[in-house]
Amino acid sequence: MVFGVDNVGTVPSALITYAAVQAIKPDLIINMGTAGGFKAKGARLADAYIATEAANHDRRIPIPIFDKYGIGANVTAATPNLVHTLHLKEGKVSTGNSLDMTPQDEEMIKANDATIKDMEGAAVLYVAHLFSIPAVLLKVVTDIVDGHKPTADEFLENLSTASEVLLQTSVRILDFIKGKTLAEL
Amino acid sequence: MVFGVDNVGTVPSALITYAAVQAIKPDLIINMGTAGGFKAKGARLADAYIATEAANHDRRIPIPIFDKYGIGANVTAATPNLVHTLHLKEGKVSTGNSLDMTPQDEEMIKANDATIKDMEGAAVLYVAHLFSIPAVLLKVVTDIVDGHKPTADEFLENLSTASEVLLQTSVRILDFIKGKTLAEL
Repeated sequence: MVFGVDNVGTVPSALITYAAVQAIKPDLIINMGTAGGFKAKGARLADAYIATEAANHDRRIPIPIFDKYGIGANVTAATPNLVHTLHLKEGKVSTGNSLDMTPQDEEMIKANDATIKDMEGAAVLYVAHLFSIPAVLLKVVTDIVDGHKPTADEFLENLSTASEVLLQTSVRILDFIKGKTLAEL
Repeated sequence: MVFGVDNVGTVPSALITYAAVQAIKPDLIINMGTAGGFKAKGARLADAYIATEAANHDRRIPIPIFDKYGIGANVTAATPNLVHTLHLKEGKVSTGNSLDMTPQDEEMIKANDATIKDMEGAAVLYVAHLFSIPAVLLKVVTDIVDGHKPTADEFLENLSTASEVLLQTSVRILDFIKGKTLAEL
């Protein structure tokens, strides 16, 4: 431990997913966390989203094919019953290693058609796909990216409320999944 | 294999370093690759650099302590004899997941005092530090970041020459290291 803060971002989340796969060999990977949401796409504070897919917005490699590799879009496991029964929202996630959003990030996020902006989802999903393990991403909104408040302030202001929703929703999701096959989710 | 291109960037390089550590338990990690160089810092095309340290320039988290975690600067193994004997250059590396450079990237790279801009070094060094394994980063310059040519064009134009220098220098480094202790490097 060097800094004493959570290891946010794509590298630590990919590593922990990889280590967990090696250790547990899970049937399903679930990445639960907080994220930014776009109100233009219908997101509101403390909304709980299940990702339909995740892609990267901070891996710009303007060489043919490398550009698509950089974006690296992958789909999550289809969970229509879970989403419907627990009244969750669905949307695409765009992942980057920064809490803020530059003009270039914004352009890529729009191209990714994302409702949710997070810092881990695409990396977890990448590792899940490496091992052909289905993955679910649950993201609860701490801040409105296309709103007027500075992201860091709004994030810290709503982190407690969003974390409570995240905890409750996580438990409901685990209860729902328990005893079901992937096809029943 | 989805795209058929090299898995460049921080997530795959962190994962392969982690997997290699688990499989081989090495005494020393060496990351060899091509990179961009800043002529304002003395870098020229096909120069071979040994990194003194590496930090990230695309992990902007403007919250106290998280900001330093995001930059995540780490030092490499000290190799004064290797650098001197093989007539290599030394400089700091700044790592990001994009081939291009936005104004925000440039600001962070300058703050990192980097001579070399790559896409893997800081991630490899992060994993090396997780396991307290010394690491050496060798970077050969394919393009001048603060020059006039578009990075992708200059990169592709010089990749062959730089790769040849990289290969030759890699062999010289492995020959030099062979049979020596870390303190002798």
